[in-house]
Amino acid sequence: MRVLILGGDGYLGWPTAMRFSGGGHEVAVVDNFARRRWVEEAGSHSLTPIATFEERLEAWREVAGKAIEHYIGDIAEGTFIADVVREFEPHAIVHYGEQASAPWSMKSVDHAVVTQANNVIGSLKLLWAIREHAPEAHLIKLGTMGEYGTPNIDIEEGFIEIEHKGRRDVLPFPKMPGSLYHLSKVHDSHNIHFACRVWGLRATDLNQGVVYGMETPETRLDERLVTRFDYDELFGTALNRFAVQAVIGYPLSVYGKGGQTRGFLNIVDTLQCVELTASNPPGPGEYRVFNQFTEVFNVADLAEKVHHAGGELGIDVQVDHVVNPRLELEEHYYNPAHTKLLELGLEPTLLSETLIESMLKRIQRHQDRVMIDVIAPVTQWRAAPMGEPAT
Amino acid sequence: MRVLILGGDGYLGWPTAMRFSGGGHEVAVVDNFARRRWVEEAGSHSLTPIATFEERLEAWREVAGKAIEHYIGDIAEGTFIADVVREFEPHAIVHYGEQASAPWSMKSVDHAVVTQANNVIGSLKLLWAIREHAPEAHLIKLGTMGEYGTPNIDIEEGFIEIEHKGRRDVLPFPKMPGSLYHLSKVHDSHNIHFACRVWGLRATDLNQGVVYGMETPETRLDERLVTRFDYDELFGTALNRFAVQAVIGYPLSVYGKGGQTRGFLNIVDTLQCVELTASNPPGPGEYRVFNQFTEVFNVADLAEKVHHAGGELGIDVQVDHVVNPRLELEEHYYNPAHTKLLELGLEPTLLSETLIESMLKRIQRHQDRVMIDVIAPVTQWRAAPMGEPAT
Repeated sequence: MRVLILGGDGYLGWPTAMRFSGGGHEVAVVDNFARRRWVEEAGSHSLTPIATFEERLEAWREVAGKAIEHYIGDIAEGTFIADVVREFEPHAIVHYGEQASAPWSMKSVDHAVVTQANNVIGSLKLLWAIREHAPEAHLIKLGTMGEYGTPNIDIEEGFIEIEHKGRRDVLPFPKMPGSLYHLSKVHDSHNIHFACRVWGLRATDLNQGVVYGMETPETRLDERLVTRFDYDELFGTALNRFAVQAVIGYPLSVYGKGGQTRGFLNIVDTLQCVELTASNPPGPGEYRVFNQFTEVFNVADLAEKVHHAGGELGIDVQVDHVVNPRLELEEHYYNPAHTKLLELGLEPTLLSETLIESMLKRIQRHQDRVMIDVIAPVTQWRAAPMGEPAT
Repeated sequence: MRVLILGGDGYLGWPTAMRFSGGGHEVAVVDNFARRRWVEEAGSHSLTPIATFEERLEAWREVAGKAIEHYIGDIAEGTFIADVVREFEPHAIVHYGEQASAPWSMKSVDHAVVTQANNVIGSLKLLWAIREHAPEAHLIKLGTMGEYGTPNIDIEEGFIEIEHKGRRDVLPFPKMPGSLYHLSKVHDSHNIHFACRVWGLRATDLNQGVVYGMETPETRLDERLVTRFDYDELFGTALNRFAVQAVIGYPLSVYGKGGQTRGFLNIVDTLQCVELTASNPPGPGEYRVFNQFTEVFNVADLAEKVHHAGGELGIDVQVDHVVNPRLELEEHYYNPAHTKLLELGLEPTLLSETLIESMLKRIQRHQDRVMIDVIAPVTQWRAAPMGEPAT
């Protein structure tokens, strides 16, 4: 199978590219290195020292004996993605090629515009490229569980049967996301659904939870193959950031009450889910949504787990409740369905104390690289009151 | 009240600007003349000979003795709209400033991208401008009934109470729109809802039906004050286009079976609805959705009405069922709520045979301007089969 990976230089994209290549598929990667640039512009860098893209490809050739093709460019610009799809003729397209940080999208009007333009227009151009040049290809789009928000009813996988005034229909699950980034994914989902309904494309929208972890079997093969690992306020996500904070003795910053509950999964399960999805494509015109996570935790529980695992390693981990920079419910109902990937054969790698301990040890190897200033939340969801600067 | 009208040179925007100005409000208009340009690029022009924007403003000054301010620019570009909002300090912003044609959005990837970028990014910049410079202003956003599609349940006004597995919540009504243009409005709605929830903005999303009619009390005051009237396949809507076809002896082109059912309203009721909305603003943080139409018709019924009214004037109107260029249900359930504007005092101007006859007579005055080639539907919703051109 020819697999095109958009955002194939990123945290998840690079391990995904190696996984498919190692599995005997013909792989091409698309990236414009926006994530490296945005993290650098925020004054941060990956905790793990990552090789350049060229070094990665060369290392993979040496270690695995396989070539990964690459196309460098911006999917939202000109005819770039159409040219790539026409030339590579993919059977599957795994689309990680988006700005993926909620706080980054909330920093300023320019960050908001770049997020929605990059994500929505990039994906729209991709859909049109598939329509024109690879109408049988399977689009595997990374969405987010954050598209749903936290409704007071059970969250289903993409669609919900509604009975209303004596009639019934199955309709897209209503969305109330919590940031302009999450909104961009909601917009994508609506556009992709349309492309399936009207152009007969086939797509799977993976509404992914929060990913944690640093390693996959492929990243362990060579130091040059490690994937990036962000811990800053913008690109670091809850568990990954907590693990770094624990190692450097920085109190874990729980936002508000910490009752915010979300779905989580290990990075190795992201790869497993994407592989299972690619191996089981939908039919023409079919738009599927899978909720992609394995466990539900609230933020305070996660902090407690890191606190406990740290203790086992002799680290005294403090937990701090800081003023929540976001506007979100800090205690809420949360019961999202996630059976479709299990039905395809997903075998969850659950969060164990052993896993956290191994992350902590791995982070200790690089703790001298941590830049403390980038951890504290600065980006505010609320507008500043008139005449006062946002703090 | 200071009222800012985005798209104030357009079919609805210009009459709206005159209405508020005539009502004693301080009015400023924003436009970049995109609609004039797009219609011209499509080889068509307004059936009614319309004055230039400068001539309109001058005529209004002469006739009504009032000045309308203006800002010429693109709301999606740079800091233009932020500068306008900061300078004018509006109390209400009526936002018609979007690419409003479904078939235009489906013509090519470039048309699709311009539609979603102009509409979504333009509105996003507007939201941010309001947040920064006029956080108390009331955004009155023109959406469309087409955002909902044609679900098999009653359509409510923006939100629906869902009971699911023993729990309840009131959530955004699920959306399944029928074109990339309609999708852009869905994206806007999600962004605006978010801006109200998180930034405390106040907004009313007017999900408007199909507007018909050529005249308002203000456009009748002077020939230079008439508003545009499009009849081409791209910008002409069902009833307006049928009336032109009837006059020139071109069989009314009903797409497919003609059972497509939609909400309709007279242009004078658009103005009434926008005025009522502006006079009854929501509270801070409140996002309201009003379904803005007065009657429901299917396309075949409309054609029959035009046929009958033509007969009264001695015109033998033919009705033709052409292959539907769109992908849509041609027979479906349709029962959308529309009580909120009635509760605010809307007095509907229902579609009468007299009204159609007066449209036909008005069109007869300009029938020598009709360009026949632009009427037939050319733009296809479906992707062409591989190797075949779209026809």
